[in-house]
Amino acid sequence: MSSPITIYGDSSSGNSLKVKFVCDKLNRPYRWVETSVVKKETRTPAFLAMNPVGQVPVILLADGTPLAQSNAIMLHLAEGSDLVPQDALARALVMQWLFWEQYGHEPAIAVLIFHKAHLKKPAHEINPELLPKSESALNVMEQHLSQRSYFVADRLTLADIALVAYTRKAPDAGIDLARWPAVRAWVARIETDLGLSSYVA
Amino acid sequence: MSSPITIYGDSSSGNSLKVKFVCDKLNRPYRWVETSVVKKETRTPAFLAMNPVGQVPVILLADGTPLAQSNAIMLHLAEGSDLVPQDALARALVMQWLFWEQYGHEPAIAVLIFHKAHLKKPAHEINPELLPKSESALNVMEQHLSQRSYFVADRLTLADIALVAYTRKAPDAGIDLARWPAVRAWVARIETDLGLSSYVA
Repeated sequence: MSSPITIYGDSSSGNSLKVKFVCDKLNRPYRWVETSVVKKETRTPAFLAMNPVGQVPVILLADGTPLAQSNAIMLHLAEGSDLVPQDALARALVMQWLFWEQYGHEPAIAVLIFHKAHLKKPAHEINPELLPKSESALNVMEQHLSQRSYFVADRLTLADIALVAYTRKAPDAGIDLARWPAVRAWVARIETDLGLSSYVA
Repeated sequence: MSSPITIYGDSSSGNSLKVKFVCDKLNRPYRWVETSVVKKETRTPAFLAMNPVGQVPVILLADGTPLAQSNAIMLHLAEGSDLVPQDALARALVMQWLFWEQYGHEPAIAVLIFHKAHLKKPAHEINPELLPKSESALNVMEQHLSQRSYFVADRLTLADIALVAYTRKAPDAGIDLARWPAVRAWVARIETDLGLSSYVA
């Protein structure tokens, strides 16, 4: 499990950074190939041959096989480590939050960040459903974290890494995390666990 | 792994049916509690106490713990069976397709089916992006299946079960699968493997 991998990622993409966070946490060697979404480097024929969906991150495994989808990549890299519980119930709950992150959280918060901070769209061109959906996702997180320090099993797992990737950047979407104090405290906790400096300076 | 579980599901929801398909395939006993999305039975205080996200399916494990997210539930129930490969690469590819199903497929095709066939919305009230996104997802599937009989490892896995749940119902969204012949042949193959009668009579 320690052969070097190649990561095609965009440094401004939370989904891409998830993979970096896991590699850094597990001291796994990797080569990072910067691949800009805004410059459409994910839409070249060479990139689409790796991932027909045209999205980062993609990793190349040691045998050259491409693997896409950030949470699938994290699971592949972290299986057998403390980041993925062995206990069947804790494991199932990690999976539950990983799927929710991609279904209920990322399509709201990450998309709002992308349109506001990266594409710099004026407010009237941004889908008005994105902000209430983002707030609703943060409400779900706040309720869960009001009784816990981590999402599952009272310790750092992939559920926290997946969810922190875009939550810490919520201010880029104009969302002040002060309204969700348990979420804000958890973001700081996970940043510390991952050895990251605070995103909100 | 053979203690009975309780499934809260809506029989018209592909996400709910995925869990039934896996239980039936693995001969796992279960109790089905019909929970209607349209009648807002997923928004009652009792249901929200199980799943604050307010979505079916939810299962109750033998010890009473609720577990949400269809693909996380399938993984929990099928771990150790032939539906989840043991080989690390095949396993990673199953995860890749499970996450793509919830990120790139379900939010297009399932939502279009729901608005057209269940809410019976008139055409002008339906988000015009849903049809091209659905067609794009089917194009990705067609390209992959043009060279294979199953999504991963040349045999039935959870990747096929997750993806067939709404793909077979695409005609309910006004999508004729004849334009995607490899997808159509694969739907018939998976329906046979799961002992289902053809959805498109």
